[in-house]
Amino acid sequence: MDRAFDFEVCAGEGEARAGVLTTRRGAIETPVFMPVGTAGTVKGIRFEELESSDLDARIILGNTYHLWLRPGIEAIKACGGLHKFIGWNRAMLTDSGGFQVWSLGALRKITEEGTEFRSHIDGSLCFLSPEVSMEVQVALGAEIAMAFDECAPGEATQEEARRSMELTLRWAKRSKEAFEKLQGSVLPPPLGEGWGEGLASSKPSPLSPLPGGEGQSAESQTNNLRYQQALFGIVQGAGHLDLRRESLERTVEIGFDGYAIGGLSVGEEKHVMMEVIEEIAPRMPPDKPRYLMGVGTPEDLIEAVARGVDMFDCVLPTRNGRNGQAFTARGKLNIKNARYALDQKPLDESCSCSVCARHTRAFIRHLYQSGEMLASILLTHHNLAFFLDTMKRVRQAIRSGQFAKFRREFTEQLHCGLG
Amino acid sequence: MDRAFDFEVCAGEGEARAGVLTTRRGAIETPVFMPVGTAGTVKGIRFEELESSDLDARIILGNTYHLWLRPGIEAIKACGGLHKFIGWNRAMLTDSGGFQVWSLGALRKITEEGTEFRSHIDGSLCFLSPEVSMEVQVALGAEIAMAFDECAPGEATQEEARRSMELTLRWAKRSKEAFEKLQGSVLPPPLGEGWGEGLASSKPSPLSPLPGGEGQSAESQTNNLRYQQALFGIVQGAGHLDLRRESLERTVEIGFDGYAIGGLSVGEEKHVMMEVIEEIAPRMPPDKPRYLMGVGTPEDLIEAVARGVDMFDCVLPTRNGRNGQAFTARGKLNIKNARYALDQKPLDESCSCSVCARHTRAFIRHLYQSGEMLASILLTHHNLAFFLDTMKRVRQAIRSGQFAKFRREFTEQLHCGLG
Repeated sequence: MDRAFDFEVCAGEGEARAGVLTTRRGAIETPVFMPVGTAGTVKGIRFEELESSDLDARIILGNTYHLWLRPGIEAIKACGGLHKFIGWNRAMLTDSGGFQVWSLGALRKITEEGTEFRSHIDGSLCFLSPEVSMEVQVALGAEIAMAFDECAPGEATQEEARRSMELTLRWAKRSKEAFEKLQGSVLPPPLGEGWGEGLASSKPSPLSPLPGGEGQSAESQTNNLRYQQALFGIVQGAGHLDLRRESLERTVEIGFDGYAIGGLSVGEEKHVMMEVIEEIAPRMPPDKPRYLMGVGTPEDLIEAVARGVDMFDCVLPTRNGRNGQAFTARGKLNIKNARYALDQKPLDESCSCSVCARHTRAFIRHLYQSGEMLASILLTHHNLAFFLDTMKRVRQAIRSGQFAKFRREFTEQLHCGLG
Repeated sequence: MDRAFDFEVCAGEGEARAGVLTTRRGAIETPVFMPVGTAGTVKGIRFEELESSDLDARIILGNTYHLWLRPGIEAIKACGGLHKFIGWNRAMLTDSGGFQVWSLGALRKITEEGTEFRSHIDGSLCFLSPEVSMEVQVALGAEIAMAFDECAPGEATQEEARRSMELTLRWAKRSKEAFEKLQGSVLPPPLGEGWGEGLASSKPSPLSPLPGGEGQSAESQTNNLRYQQALFGIVQGAGHLDLRRESLERTVEIGFDGYAIGGLSVGEEKHVMMEVIEEIAPRMPPDKPRYLMGVGTPEDLIEAVARGVDMFDCVLPTRNGRNGQAFTARGKLNIKNARYALDQKPLDESCSCSVCARHTRAFIRHLYQSGEMLASILLTHHNLAFFLDTMKRVRQAIRSGQFAKFRREFTEQLHCGLG
């Protein structure tokens, strides 16, 4: 099916590659890091900051599980879809909810049909399946939706991992069928058309029109979401390389717009994670985007890029920022440390973000110790700037054939200690 | 003593007046609202936002009590004074700590010498007096410092209020003596000179220089704070108008750069507050700024301006914002209310701030219900924009002789209910 979604590789060095992902909400250069916007907000940062030249995030994540439970899909539909609801007009990717319900542990029960679980908000009984996840993700309307999968624990045995992988494959087929049905059977309107529908009859919005979303009524925007989304499949198989290869092969047989490596960073050892990435990423279809889910540290990102990965998401920059940790070119900095009490240096001496241009470690430490929200705000901003800038430098390095050098220097500097 | 501080009234209508307060960190048009930056941060908002055209806050408050306890004066001195420590180069006013220690209630003991109290942070025994407060405020280096006062409760009897007022007067004298001694006995360098001292010997800062503060070492900046601060006296006397008049007269006799009305909004009835303002504000020296401390709602501000007040500070826009309340031209809006769950309107339909231009009530309510930090960030921004914009409109109205009309229309609209 022809979709408003395209991917092209422009440059490569070893397995590393630079490319462009085209969505109806703009082009995204890869490798790309996607900040995580769990409940419709990347925690602690305004959308204006995400769009600023400091960060320039071209795509963010939304979480199906969280948004489905609160505010609920009917509410988001009534507000014109997720982009309009949250006021973000750049690209988005939604996960399937599979990982989140899996994370609930004892609170969930997995059957062939789907996953039954109790809401973490009010304890009510909920049910998520490939079909429900697709329905929710189509209503949310992100540019990229994910197949509904099951995740095996990091230490899963061969038998457990196979059972889980087989289930994920059956769910992948059901995801694709439900998704295609929901996307409709006719061709989409050409990009840029169909956006004005409903304009004449719709009351002008009191909200400033955002670029590309001008004058649309909620209803016309929801309609336009049809035929415009891409669906990615997810490779599972825990730490078992043979299962991982089989999962990849059979997922590609089903056929998706892009492929993800799931089930990593879930308790397995770091070397297991790298072995899986090294084994799987280079075998993934070269003409489709390759997305490593939920990973990782800046070092992990560089190493995964070196193995052919194009897309990443991770809560580390935001979550660790709120917990007082700054990522810097010379490693992690714990702002709680008393040694920073009078430190007049910025968080990262080589960073040019607005936080590092203005504020000292001493001040940010004071804010953190005082329980001030601004500590989280500033650390989140810097950490996202660091992750996004690192990926920008990765892209430049690959395009200029300097990635091997960049990777070596980046890793060396990371271990030479804080100034 | 000649100081880098000046005040001039430019226009008036009835008792209301518009003027300009000149400090070494720029001119401030009055009437002015000062956001409260308790512990070195206006809670929930970045300094860049305070400087943006949405808010354009020209002066913010710092709290002596909080900063003295944490991070401590030695730390702030070592970091080059409060402006440099927090990265704010516009004007600041510090309170004396008197009100904060008074608020500790049972935790403090007031004697002629000063106030002994236990720190709310670690329970340690501390002592604040006029002399200590002046020393701390000079080290902080705000453009305006406040005399150390004692506050009587709203319902204080004549006898209690007199005892408190007399103590405040004795403390006011001691504050002025200590302050002048600390400011030095020679004339200050002309404005704009003396700022380059230490430049040649100082290592270039890794922080971007802020306008007006370029190239200064911490030490030279601290030196330059001498002779540059103004000191305001505080009128007390609880709800007793005769005491209030006497307090004003005797405070003016001591002689300050500006005068404040303290001890309001501390539990007295609203009509008592307005009677005190109406009685005192117009009698305050016409050539000095008049500052109403800790008040109030937008309506209170307009009413106090109508009685001759020039300066305000209040935690309402920030604190209530964090608690889910938006101030709007049509009254207060409680974002928790279920009626806003699908509301596509901005917080305030007549507001042009960046929050109202982008986000709906439905989204902000969702953020609040989800416990997301962004709810506080957005509500704080809007509320400050509303307070600061209201004061801008007040200034324009006074300058164009339209204040009476503005006041009537503003008040009417405030009571006509939310759209």
